[in-house]
Amino acid sequence: MVVELVSVGTEILLGNIVNTNAAWLAEQCALLGCSLYHQTVVGDNESRMEETIRQALERSDVVILTGGLGPTKDDLTKEVTARVFDRPLYMDSHTKERITEFFRISGKEYQITENNWKQAMVPEGAAVIDNDNGTAPGLILEDKEKKKAAILLPGPPGEMRAMFEKDIAPWLNRLQPEGIYSRMIKICGIGESQAETMVADLMEKQGNPTLAPYAKIGEVHFRVTAKAVSEEKAELLMEPLCREMQKRFGQAIYTMDEEVTLEEAVVSLLKEKGFTVTTAESCTGGKLAGRMLNVAGASDVYREGYITYANESKEKLLGVAHDTLEKFGAVSPQTAREMALGAARQAGADAALSVTGIAGPGGGTPEKPLGLVYIGCTVGERTEVREFHFSGNREKNRDYAVVRALTFLREMLLEKDGKREKGESR
Amino acid sequence: MVVELVSVGTEILLGNIVNTNAAWLAEQCALLGCSLYHQTVVGDNESRMEETIRQALERSDVVILTGGLGPTKDDLTKEVTARVFDRPLYMDSHTKERITEFFRISGKEYQITENNWKQAMVPEGAAVIDNDNGTAPGLILEDKEKKKAAILLPGPPGEMRAMFEKDIAPWLNRLQPEGIYSRMIKICGIGESQAETMVADLMEKQGNPTLAPYAKIGEVHFRVTAKAVSEEKAELLMEPLCREMQKRFGQAIYTMDEEVTLEEAVVSLLKEKGFTVTTAESCTGGKLAGRMLNVAGASDVYREGYITYANESKEKLLGVAHDTLEKFGAVSPQTAREMALGAARQAGADAALSVTGIAGPGGGTPEKPLGLVYIGCTVGERTEVREFHFSGNREKNRDYAVVRALTFLREMLLEKDGKREKGESR
Repeated sequence: MVVELVSVGTEILLGNIVNTNAAWLAEQCALLGCSLYHQTVVGDNESRMEETIRQALERSDVVILTGGLGPTKDDLTKEVTARVFDRPLYMDSHTKERITEFFRISGKEYQITENNWKQAMVPEGAAVIDNDNGTAPGLILEDKEKKKAAILLPGPPGEMRAMFEKDIAPWLNRLQPEGIYSRMIKICGIGESQAETMVADLMEKQGNPTLAPYAKIGEVHFRVTAKAVSEEKAELLMEPLCREMQKRFGQAIYTMDEEVTLEEAVVSLLKEKGFTVTTAESCTGGKLAGRMLNVAGASDVYREGYITYANESKEKLLGVAHDTLEKFGAVSPQTAREMALGAARQAGADAALSVTGIAGPGGGTPEKPLGLVYIGCTVGERTEVREFHFSGNREKNRDYAVVRALTFLREMLLEKDGKREKGESR
Repeated sequence: MVVELVSVGTEILLGNIVNTNAAWLAEQCALLGCSLYHQTVVGDNESRMEETIRQALERSDVVILTGGLGPTKDDLTKEVTARVFDRPLYMDSHTKERITEFFRISGKEYQITENNWKQAMVPEGAAVIDNDNGTAPGLILEDKEKKKAAILLPGPPGEMRAMFEKDIAPWLNRLQPEGIYSRMIKICGIGESQAETMVADLMEKQGNPTLAPYAKIGEVHFRVTAKAVSEEKAELLMEPLCREMQKRFGQAIYTMDEEVTLEEAVVSLLKEKGFTVTTAESCTGGKLAGRMLNVAGASDVYREGYITYANESKEKLLGVAHDTLEKFGAVSPQTAREMALGAARQAGADAALSVTGIAGPGGGTPEKPLGLVYIGCTVGERTEVREFHFSGNREKNRDYAVVRALTFLREMLLEKDGKREKGESR
């Protein structure tokens, strides 16, 4: 089944917003096993929109349109598509009720205008998809003779995604003899090219299931995808490959759940072990704590943390020895070690991470070049330090340091041998 | 002049990456005064790419293609476009030298493979655009008879943007009788709809220059754009509108420089006044410090900061009174005030920001609902607290709190009356 995406909206055409809808929908449709050959963006212009829809329907089986379903005169997607399918519009009482209800619940009944009833107009014979997060319903128009369909979804991502997941994905899946099922294997602490080399043979001989890598900042994700008539059958197909991946990557796999982030995995592990944690940051300046505390409920494991930019602050707040700073400098394995130890002691925490480095753009020297970062990690009685050489700009170096720190803590918590060769870089 | 964007790459088509190139190029072309009616994405497929390029050239004057200029067999953009323009390829010695030089400088000469010379092949009569950040040159192919042109740029944003700014923008500008010049007016502390209402009359009667709002998280940016034969003429056209904007928004304008961020404006202001600053964060958990320390050279004004998630940490690190926490709770104006005062004292800083609130998803009560955040700000002898009600998810609430805190500090530094009505929300 060939699916084509058409994004409607002058604000996308002029670059005022980035077209994240197309990327999200494309990924979802690819996961469902659909083929994708074209994506188009067209503005709120009647004739160009009609031409675009006609061309898309000619070359693809299903055209998914997003945007242009609002209540204003500029919103034309429904009207133009209905004309292409030669279907008159009628007032749909079910949708009208839902719109009234939507305003009532949010206490804004007084805001309903005549314009809003435009959103309750529906092309004859179209399937109406309820919108739980807004007023514009989704629509499916089918030409059963030509075996073509257009799916209309609202532009706001929160509305569009919920409707796609609840109603459109099952509808698309029913059109195909086999469904597509997948699992995400998330790996930290192993570089992208190394990870790909480790599974080169698996990628070469892949068929059903398939194996695809996705590089993230400091992480590698592999998606395992199987085509099967049922979820159970798909699981049976994916099982051996997943087991093989686990054998090869072992504890470097931090989750096989699509929704779980690295910081969530680390916080879960801390909770599991009954450990508390703290952070002492110099060059990352709060970003590491900020990311760890993204996790709802992180307060169970994290009580306090320190941002120690100045040397005096490292001494005063963390008890780093004046001599250490003088002799080895703020960016040194010795300082990173004392920062981690001092933070754990000061916070009364079981574990601590410290980061000190030269994020750039200034501050580099031949001995301590830009991108040099030391990360210290204390877990219980053990304290270790790792040296990194990052090669991005200030922002990237700080982001990589955050991921490396989380990975380091995770590995120490798993009591994996934390030693690395000196000079390791991303 | 009608410009059309064609993005080439299966990874965009399948949603593996978001098409930020199209948004960026569209914005740049719109700023140059070009008209944009279509954007297309096509995969690494020869016949579909050829069809797409031919159609784009039929309906537009200039087609900008990004991606597909790499050294592998999958990279077809140059080959297909050359065929459409009926131009044979030849080995360009200048580009070959540049590629060799690029590898030599990065110390990776040994990595040059036969594949790389594919990137030095150039269509006859094409203008070659040097790439300072990679190996694939850009190309301009013109059909002077039909008055059509194709511009080919590499996919990596860092390479593409630099080449567009340096060579493509001036080339496009030369094709037009008048150039487009613009200024960005960045505003904080005023909501989007309020800001737009304040300039509704200016937006209604706009002509040359134009005025366009862009909503950012917690900020509003207005772009003033003028069409003129020279930059001086454009400045003369923009001047009265910019002056009027300054009159209406006053100190809420934190910069009129496109490149300056809010945190940079705040750090500059601190430096200007010779003030140091610190932060005490509960619900934002390091994000505020992390953002402020994005600014290179922030170490001049920021020495240390505190993340105090637990009540005991607020007492121990910041000296918040036990009674205050007991009587009013951690999320209260009283606690926010003592946190800011305590942080300034502890860090020996001239100014301090504190954040305490309920970011969600849990923790809300009828009296203290989800999204309630208190921000405290101390500058010299003055300490004030503001109450906010955010209505997003955990991540959004924390991001809004960070922007509101920076805005608060900026206003206090400017000695603006910091008082707000209770219950203010974003």
